[in-house]
Amino acid sequence: MTLLTTARDLQRRKARERSGTFVAEGVRTVEALLASSLHVTGVLVSPSVQRTPRAIAVRQRALDLNLSVTEVSEAEFASASDTDSAQGILAVARVPDFSYGDLPSSAVKLLVLDAVQDPGNVGTILRTAAAFGVTATVALPGTVDLWNAKVVRSGMGSHFVHPTLVSTIDALAQFCQHRALPVFGADAAGVPVDQLQIPPQRALMVGNEGAGLSPESLALVQQMVALPIDAAVESLNVAVATGILLFAFR
Amino acid sequence: MTLLTTARDLQRRKARERSGTFVAEGVRTVEALLASSLHVTGVLVSPSVQRTPRAIAVRQRALDLNLSVTEVSEAEFASASDTDSAQGILAVARVPDFSYGDLPSSAVKLLVLDAVQDPGNVGTILRTAAAFGVTATVALPGTVDLWNAKVVRSGMGSHFVHPTLVSTIDALAQFCQHRALPVFGADAAGVPVDQLQIPPQRALMVGNEGAGLSPESLALVQQMVALPIDAAVESLNVAVATGILLFAFR
Repeated sequence: MTLLTTARDLQRRKARERSGTFVAEGVRTVEALLASSLHVTGVLVSPSVQRTPRAIAVRQRALDLNLSVTEVSEAEFASASDTDSAQGILAVARVPDFSYGDLPSSAVKLLVLDAVQDPGNVGTILRTAAAFGVTATVALPGTVDLWNAKVVRSGMGSHFVHPTLVSTIDALAQFCQHRALPVFGADAAGVPVDQLQIPPQRALMVGNEGAGLSPESLALVQQMVALPIDAAVESLNVAVATGILLFAFR
Repeated sequence: MTLLTTARDLQRRKARERSGTFVAEGVRTVEALLASSLHVTGVLVSPSVQRTPRAIAVRQRALDLNLSVTEVSEAEFASASDTDSAQGILAVARVPDFSYGDLPSSAVKLLVLDAVQDPGNVGTILRTAAAFGVTATVALPGTVDLWNAKVVRSGMGSHFVHPTLVSTIDALAQFCQHRALPVFGADAAGVPVDQLQIPPQRALMVGNEGAGLSPESLALVQQMVALPIDAAVESLNVAVATGILLFAFR
């Protein structure tokens, strides 16, 4: 399969899961990918890549790394691209292998996403998790695929430095029990975050944009935690709320 | 002009500024609008409005308020709609009048947006500002129009309860000087927020997604403030960073 066909194919979650690869698109994202330890399969460029010095430099970096760089037409590139204003560069890379067994033996700070669905929110959350020293982010069923192109783009390179793993709720429950990891759950009915003592090792769960935490997730929660917001406002955006909690929990 | 023509016209910033009106779209947003004190010009519905009980109730609420409710075809509605998955209801309403003179005489907490451009970010920021007791949000030149349909949608009703105003940098400088309002500026080179004493009255400025604060804005800043993030991450999303600062400043 040519790299163009592969990149097009990887727009589907099934193809990403089957192949264990994903697409990183845009100058900054590909730049961050090439600077990371991830295995890159190849780079696809269109004539647009000549537009900015930074894009030209990223293409050159790929060549210097002896990566395969395939040149295609604008129309071909657009058929594999997820954005309207394509910057003419994308890369196919391998999703890093990471499991509960790879977590350090102490001071584990997990962030758990329970059916968070908006790609922009999830990418932004990964970026924040990387910024505030979260050990790994766990995606429970119902969460958007972390390797979806929009999530990767919103992650601004955090996917390449911050460990993530996909898990069932049972596997998460087992891990937390085995490690005696207290589980905090974000919920408007919880205790305000500034009234809590946060242990150095813990899991923080955040729920779906509309529905919040699922009953199965709530069953794992030992301490519900809330943000002190004005009564005139129903809720915060989930990426903002998670950001504030990760700051307070750091 | 029919309400349909008006709504289409209001997709352009110039039309919004000339008429002093804007479009609020979607069931929840129109619901919040009708519950607010804003003056509503009229409501536009398509047959899709019959799909959910909540949408039917919002349409009925508009009729109960003696508002003009215009029924149009799906195609006509789509021509005025900003979303892909239209919920079949939008309203045209007047942008509330608010100026520096309307601010209370003490304990003013301003949030200032300096060329923040992404509509989703700005709507999310207004939602957070309303949640954490900001007195008013000021949009400086270069900031996306706060009454753009995408900003209103991301604001989730906060536009209708949280005062906003559009200002030049000179008018802001005058107001802050007149009120002896200390100006904090979000900048990675600043003092970590948890090391600062935050006065009860102040302005917090946040800058453009890529470029940060402009030189003109920086000239107003008395104290730069930063968030303590990991060196592996270049920056946070502006809505997340603003959310954390507003939480810390509340």
